[in-house]
Amino acid sequence: MKIAIYGYGNLGRGVEFAVKQNPDTELFGIFTRRPPENVKPAFAETKVFPAADITNYKNDIDVLIICGGSATDLPEMTPALAADFNVIDSFDTHADIPKHFVAVDEAAKKGDKVAVISVGWDPGMFSLNRLYANAILPEGKDYTFWGKGVSQGHSDAIRRIEGVLDARQYTIPVQSALDSVRAGENPDLTTREKHTRLCYVVASEEADKARIEREIKTMPKYFSDYDTTVNFISQEELDRDHKGIPHGGFVIRTGKTGKDNGSNHVIEYSLKLDSNPEFTASVLVAFARAAYRMSARGDSGCKTVFDIAPVDLSAKTREQVIAEML
Amino acid sequence: MKIAIYGYGNLGRGVEFAVKQNPDTELFGIFTRRPPENVKPAFAETKVFPAADITNYKNDIDVLIICGGSATDLPEMTPALAADFNVIDSFDTHADIPKHFVAVDEAAKKGDKVAVISVGWDPGMFSLNRLYANAILPEGKDYTFWGKGVSQGHSDAIRRIEGVLDARQYTIPVQSALDSVRAGENPDLTTREKHTRLCYVVASEEADKARIEREIKTMPKYFSDYDTTVNFISQEELDRDHKGIPHGGFVIRTGKTGKDNGSNHVIEYSLKLDSNPEFTASVLVAFARAAYRMSARGDSGCKTVFDIAPVDLSAKTREQVIAEML
Repeated sequence: MKIAIYGYGNLGRGVEFAVKQNPDTELFGIFTRRPPENVKPAFAETKVFPAADITNYKNDIDVLIICGGSATDLPEMTPALAADFNVIDSFDTHADIPKHFVAVDEAAKKGDKVAVISVGWDPGMFSLNRLYANAILPEGKDYTFWGKGVSQGHSDAIRRIEGVLDARQYTIPVQSALDSVRAGENPDLTTREKHTRLCYVVASEEADKARIEREIKTMPKYFSDYDTTVNFISQEELDRDHKGIPHGGFVIRTGKTGKDNGSNHVIEYSLKLDSNPEFTASVLVAFARAAYRMSARGDSGCKTVFDIAPVDLSAKTREQVIAEML
Repeated sequence: MKIAIYGYGNLGRGVEFAVKQNPDTELFGIFTRRPPENVKPAFAETKVFPAADITNYKNDIDVLIICGGSATDLPEMTPALAADFNVIDSFDTHADIPKHFVAVDEAAKKGDKVAVISVGWDPGMFSLNRLYANAILPEGKDYTFWGKGVSQGHSDAIRRIEGVLDARQYTIPVQSALDSVRAGENPDLTTREKHTRLCYVVASEEADKARIEREIKTMPKYFSDYDTTVNFISQEELDRDHKGIPHGGFVIRTGKTGKDNGSNHVIEYSLKLDSNPEFTASVLVAFARAAYRMSARGDSGCKTVFDIAPVDLSAKTREQVIAEML
């Protein structure tokens, strides 16, 4: 199965590594909107092509993994490319998924291709766990906690404040809230009760740190609804201690069954990831395999993680997974 | 969707409750090999039929949930019934699943029916999590821990010892082993290092407790490879403190990605269940829905949890799950 990467940032680089780990995938190359000579792949043998030429390679690529941003890239790229390629994206603006689905579905059906959208861990693996848990326990309550992990969006928001040179923001689940959920207490939790925000900020020498801290803590949507801690550190400290892009989180459903709903159950799925983009990339490659197989069977249109039988994600045969994993 | 229960013990009773919780399922009735008047359903309106008459109701039942034991019941019942009904079972003798699959597949294909075998939590939800995690992280290591929970098989084994009136055995994961796995240390764990066994035993007055304890602790396969604790208690204490059938466990995969495999990831799925049979029953009902839909689409043959697209498990429409859970 020949996989190509469209867009080469942290996520595309993660796909480049993930393709190497799988026995049945090989990398056709990277497509970039930048001048190809400006892109430095992780492996010397990886070919880089101009994005503008991609339709020349229609018959050489089995699945295209689109590694763009959800704000502006993917709403354009995925429908445009789904007419010519089997594609996967990690579109993660939850509220806009139904709209994205319709646009991609139309294109993929026109081109008789399979497109899988919103693949990753949330949306993605977390979504799957929400669905499985809801199907099993119809009477229950869902909780999703994120972190401890770096939020790129929140880090960027801090960097836009005057006097800030660099910043890194961690989203941290509140342990007592997690404990209460796991204990089956079914708490109603406010935004503030679920997560705290921890910021490491590099300020310019002349900047008013009190003002920066105030601007962060009162920023609507991003910080004002949370208990936020701001630590000022040096650029050296930020580079040394906060270079990684870890993330993770917890999907928990608690529910009741039996006589008088007397039995309590807790289903929990959690991820602890050293690298958010590398893990997301690994999920993308597994679903690329499914897209390839579904397309080979004559299927077409837009799919989500909900539509894909788990066996299609595995490099192993159906007989193998039944014998080894069931 | 009309569901029938075949076999009425703890599991069948769990199905009777679970069917009530779902908006799109109704219970046709219970089929039993006992005299029907000896079966006391949880709900007065539940009808009880003799198992021998079941083929008379071929056209009235959409899915039959077979609630028998894996040792002797299911290897006979499931292939026999799969020719006439869409069926689900919870066959859980892992090593014999491939053989069971072949027998059920042949029958179901002959009858143009869908059969889903080995549904529950292990095999079942734990299997699904092993498969998803392996597909995402090809380079990694799997761990399954069970407990804290009651093992019926081990409790039965103790009860067969001379002088034992009653017994309850708990399987308990070793916390330090769990911690090591979660920390990404990839330990190689022996049987003894993963689980301990805790036994509550009611002995007859004249019995030699030292002998009973020795017989338990040295019992091959069941206890000899474990650190086992034996507590003698009264029947009143057993009935008061150990009446429930709780269980649960953990499926963890740790893996590496990226440059020089430098990033570590931990995927963990866990269950904490007050009632093992009620939870298993709830999983069975969700997969009954999928069997019904697959059959309605013209599919047939034996399926496992790996073959079923998650969307088919939900009572909600595809549009709803995309909007609400993705």
